Amino acid sequence: MTGGRITLAHGSGGRAMGELVRELFLEVFDDPELRRLDDLARLEPAAGGRLGFTTDCHVITPPIFPGGDIGRLAVCGTVNDLAVGGAEPQALSCGFVLEEGLELALLERIVRSMKAAAREAGVRIVAGDTKVVRRGEADRIYITTAGVGWIAAGTALGPERIRPGDRLLVSGPVGDHGAAVLDARGELSMEVGLDSDCRPLASLARALLAACGPGLRAMRDPTRGGLTAVLNEFARHCGCRLEVEEEAVPVREAVRGVCELLGLDPFDLPCEGVLLAVVDPAQAGQALEVLRSHPDGAHAQLIGEAGRAGEPEVVVRTPYGGQRLLDQPLGDPLPRIC
Amino acid sequence: MTGGRITLAHGSGGRAMGELVRELFLEVFDDPELRRLDDLARLEPAAGGRLGFTTDCHVITPPIFPGGDIGRLAVCGTVNDLAVGGAEPQALSCGFVLEEGLELALLERIVRSMKAAAREAGVRIVAGDTKVVRRGEADRIYITTAGVGWIAAGTALGPERIRPGDRLLVSGPVGDHGAAVLDARGELSMEVGLDSDCRPLASLARALLAACGPGLRAMRDPTRGGLTAVLNEFARHCGCRLEVEEEAVPVREAVRGVCELLGLDPFDLPCEGVLLAVVDPAQAGQALEVLRSHPDGAHAQLIGEAGRAGEPEVVVRTPYGGQRLLDQPLGDPLPRIC
Repeated sequence: MTGGRITLAHGSGGRAMGELVRELFLEVFDDPELRRLDDLARLEPAAGGRLGFTTDCHVITPPIFPGGDIGRLAVCGTVNDLAVGGAEPQALSCGFVLEEGLELALLERIVRSMKAAAREAGVRIVAGDTKVVRRGEADRIYITTAGVGWIAAGTALGPERIRPGDRLLVSGPVGDHGAAVLDARGELSMEVGLDSDCRPLASLARALLAACGPGLRAMRDPTRGGLTAVLNEFARHCGCRLEVEEEAVPVREAVRGVCELLGLDPFDLPCEGVLLAVVDPAQAGQALEVLRSHPDGAHAQLIGEAGRAGEPEVVVRTPYGGQRLLDQPLGDPLPRIC
Repeated sequence: MTGGRITLAHGSGGRAMGELVRELFLEVFDDPELRRLDDLARLEPAAGGRLGFTTDCHVITPPIFPGGDIGRLAVCGTVNDLAVGGAEPQALSCGFVLEEGLELALLERIVRSMKAAAREAGVRIVAGDTKVVRRGEADRIYITTAGVGWIAAGTALGPERIRPGDRLLVSGPVGDHGAAVLDARGELSMEVGLDSDCRPLASLARALLAACGPGLRAMRDPTRGGLTAVLNEFARHCGCRLEVEEEAVPVREAVRGVCELLGLDPFDLPCEGVLLAVVDPAQAGQALEVLRSHPDGAHAQLIGEAGRAGEPEVVVRTPYGGQRLLDQPLGDPLPRIC
């Protein structure tokens, strides 16, 4: 497959496209439902559960970055939306919009990375579509993944379940993905040497759900908009004031450095391998232990709690006794970060 | 919502994006699962059936064309993949890649059209994502839909079930969509006044499946690559020679005119509201009646049959006793047609 470039014929539904599908996608993704080429994958449902269904578009630039690439990101992004919603990820679909002239070697690298991430997450890739647009009508490659998974009977997660006193936990340092991608773009005056945290969270989410049961109120992966976006959404949904101790939130030194340089708040930076969990105060200690004993949650921290109801806002307590409102930025400091 | 344009802030995960999501997508799509804004929709499964899962990317230009638009196309395309696979369409996800500067009025028109098509097809829109890229990094709007539906126990459709003697039926004239979009692009020296056939086929597929049961071997909607692509794929899967009577295939005069002008074969043109069905010869008459008594299949025709096994090719018999091999084009005469 290597050596060539994507042409309009690769998106035509004709012979060139058939070859691309058979020699790359079917070969690498290697799934019997995909091999049927039937435009429709057929899956056996889990007994007694509900279906979880989600989608994400990925337009990140550059398509390869330290710690990942757009393919790994596309798989992890959708797997993680399923996992933090309490669904056991089952299968993904992927839609590729490719720019004419895209190097086939780059496409192959991305597709192989998707397969590796899917294997890591224990999920199948069962359906796909590819469209090719002319030069200048896309920037190399955009990938939209959708995912399905089974939610066990009795699992009920959601920010509307958060009550005053509940504890907020993060599974690791925030902002790595955002800072790593800004670094990879060469937009910083220094080299930071950061890796994106891009990883599937299915195993971590499963462990936490198993340990806490209904004491686990809600989980979410703070991707676009970072911790700021998720905390504000949670506050709006539960109607509580959420209080975060600034010093308790783990942020790497390198990420702090990038943020100071660019005038960004690390809480606004996207993560791609971290989850925010809200748990019953009686189970917070156990939840923290479960997270820390898992390789993907070794640096988990208790970062705050849900305060009184009736004031849906997010407050950050600073080290010297002050506090600030954590509000969402109006503009977009970080286009195409995921 | 009208009057403005899409900015990078609409894709940021911040406040501008929240407004777009709440005031346009939630308002128009109006689904309780979408309103939960939980990154994950939860659906009740049908008892005893399997899950059907599919995806399609849509990059058509122009985004509004006679008989439809990219939104209607995105809904119908995915609904139809579910329907012809024997699944009862249940819910869709939609991923938008928007170019900075896109008119909000155009986006609103497209989103409202998606909702109307979804209502027509009896399907919910339950999950979505939006990304904004800079000017020149996309051509206005690309939409990737994924869909889930339930396949009743006992339903088994697939081209591998086709046997010698089975009959081939189309539910209506072929090539309307392709010719209408070429017309809309102003690339023809004449004005044709054609409408795309873009429509949901769920009801028609359901009627045929109910009437024929296991006598219905396979269905497919000949979209990209047209009848040529589907017939060749069916031949490859069943290992039979498929024989088509050229004169029996319904093609509108206007579509023939466009094809003559551009040197295209109408069989290569995409349809977006037609299905090809393969049925047991004993049920062909009944199947044709079922199709013709449905408003979406009024012009259905018996177009050919499966010949002997061992020669997976497609042969078209011409009116004067000749025949030609119907092979797939190598290049792409029709970029961004769907």
